[in-house]
Amino acid sequence: MPPRFDFSITETDGAARRGTIAMLRGEIRTPAFMPVGTAATVKAMKPQDVRASGADIILGNTYHLMLRPGAERVARLGGLHQFMGWERPILTDSGGYQVMSLSELRKLDEQGVRFKSHLDGSSHLLTPELSMEVQRLLGADIVMAFDECTPFPASRDEAARSMERSMRWAQRSRDGFDAGGDHAVAAALFGIQQGAMDEDLRRASAEALTSIGFDGYAVGGLAVGEGQAEMFRVLDFAVAMLPANRPRYLMGVGKPDDIVGAVERGIDMFDCVLPTRSGRTGQAFTSDGPINIKNARFAEDKGPLDSACGCPVCSGWSRAYIHHLVKSGEILGAMLMTEHNLAFYQILMAGLRDAIAHGRLTAFAQAFRSRYSGGR
Amino acid sequence: MPPRFDFSITETDGAARRGTIAMLRGEIRTPAFMPVGTAATVKAMKPQDVRASGADIILGNTYHLMLRPGAERVARLGGLHQFMGWERPILTDSGGYQVMSLSELRKLDEQGVRFKSHLDGSSHLLTPELSMEVQRLLGADIVMAFDECTPFPASRDEAARSMERSMRWAQRSRDGFDAGGDHAVAAALFGIQQGAMDEDLRRASAEALTSIGFDGYAVGGLAVGEGQAEMFRVLDFAVAMLPANRPRYLMGVGKPDDIVGAVERGIDMFDCVLPTRSGRTGQAFTSDGPINIKNARFAEDKGPLDSACGCPVCSGWSRAYIHHLVKSGEILGAMLMTEHNLAFYQILMAGLRDAIAHGRLTAFAQAFRSRYSGGR
Repeated sequence: MPPRFDFSITETDGAARRGTIAMLRGEIRTPAFMPVGTAATVKAMKPQDVRASGADIILGNTYHLMLRPGAERVARLGGLHQFMGWERPILTDSGGYQVMSLSELRKLDEQGVRFKSHLDGSSHLLTPELSMEVQRLLGADIVMAFDECTPFPASRDEAARSMERSMRWAQRSRDGFDAGGDHAVAAALFGIQQGAMDEDLRRASAEALTSIGFDGYAVGGLAVGEGQAEMFRVLDFAVAMLPANRPRYLMGVGKPDDIVGAVERGIDMFDCVLPTRSGRTGQAFTSDGPINIKNARFAEDKGPLDSACGCPVCSGWSRAYIHHLVKSGEILGAMLMTEHNLAFYQILMAGLRDAIAHGRLTAFAQAFRSRYSGGR
Repeated sequence: MPPRFDFSITETDGAARRGTIAMLRGEIRTPAFMPVGTAATVKAMKPQDVRASGADIILGNTYHLMLRPGAERVARLGGLHQFMGWERPILTDSGGYQVMSLSELRKLDEQGVRFKSHLDGSSHLLTPELSMEVQRLLGADIVMAFDECTPFPASRDEAARSMERSMRWAQRSRDGFDAGGDHAVAAALFGIQQGAMDEDLRRASAEALTSIGFDGYAVGGLAVGEGQAEMFRVLDFAVAMLPANRPRYLMGVGKPDDIVGAVERGIDMFDCVLPTRSGRTGQAFTSDGPINIKNARFAEDKGPLDSACGCPVCSGWSRAYIHHLVKSGEILGAMLMTEHNLAFYQILMAGLRDAIAHGRLTAFAQAFRSRYSGGR
């Protein structure tokens, strides 16, 4: 029987690590990129094609799923894996980020967040305990603690108060998760470091989380508008505060060059809507940087989206064809663009893992950066 | 080397026929249903999945393709097959139907149809000669003569004048096609019978077409609002007027029960947007008739779209999941619904072919009709 949660680091290269997380539903190769499957679907992709792109794990959004189709309904239908046809691990976020960014009339206090659904205006209260219950009903393999993503910019006092509340919520999340019966025995729980851009607050947060104890640790509160240089500056001190023998997950990141830099700084897991969302708006990732496939210069370009890519899309269709599809608003355009972009991200992760394994991450990252440009 | 166009009837059952059309790009099993790939894509489907559903041939729309991306551009990109990644036969319509139904400010005279593009308002003149040229540039395997689909309802005089002009255009189409060099040697040309609901006009049209000579013959001017009973009444006399040793194609038809009745009346080929368009609006075809998957009664239905269907969608996902996707506006909803609907149509065609082969089409059709209901 596979273990509940077993993280093993097979190689390191500087601060970077290559490893695997063994879980009941399968193994996650790290550094890992998790495609976002907000509403029980990685948009415009069949689950088998998500897997074929190289994904070992996907992310589901608690906020969306609790509102539609509802966590109890998903549970009655056999859980999120069976519902959507994805048999491998799923990480669900806590809803804490999206309830603040997407809902209406939200009000945050010590108990949790009161909000009105962006779908139908119905009133809800999301608390650490309810977030754990929703993620249990969904059947998540990796559950995220319920926290507040500190707004940016924030004063030091605001950042401190927000972080301290998130740490109290982390304990309530731990307690709620542990009360989850069979699910608590099968799933893993991650805590989330906050503290904005402040080193002392990040240290205090890491200490609070470590003292509670989690299977993995996320860096939250970044990729909120601070820019790549500032994000890297924070990672330079924040990552090492988290236990070295546990996976470290940088939430909501990011652009390909963000990921390369974060892997160099010791991050093991990523999620981001960028490859899927970009795929629906005409941005394709290539080894030279992102391109807007709607640009007229691609109208008769017989080459693939990325000449260095061997994905099924690049093997099968030209830039000219995908240009036509996207310009025409055809669903197949979104399908092919998304499939390529997810493959691009997974090929990047495979390259990073391989570079770490062979002790040449610095050369890999330099080669990547010298070729890849733009998009910011 | 396969033949350019070789139609062989292997079995008959009443007026119905089972057979194959052998062409350079592959064999078409008849009776055949051709999915519609309007803008160089069967909407929401990869070509390999269209093929896996059982399609031997797809249809492309001359009107759409000449406007976007343009026939010359498609030719420069290697033709429609290479452009979209479909290697098997493609039939293109002539543009005659859609220029009248979709374009703006159209004006029809003996020369052809002047119109303004529905995309950008640009002015165009579509003639029999240009339609042949466009279909040649696209690289169609089966080219349709340029005709006028007589409006419904029409007086006998209107129907006669319209049919007679279409017959003059049929000769111009024949001449234009034959002047197409290499393409004329590799592709096939179908004539289109008009004559509205009138037996004498249908006979005159069939005689005019037969005297010109075509590889196959379409029944045009039906499925224009006359209803199934009237359509079948016309087919009862119109089909037998067309040469028995040539494929007969009922254009733009239809609902599953339309197809069953038309096969019983001797039709060999069909095309219709219904399975694909319905797939994007929430209508799924089942052995019991169409269902609207958005209906609340499917919200927790763990069964497949059609319990009698073995398609990949019915094997993989529940009505409850697809209900959720379609209600949420997810692209995957359109993808799965379209894939199932196309499979439903192809399974129906396979059942019809099998029934004809075994001399039990009447029993098959009765069993189908006794179970299938609704949707009209």
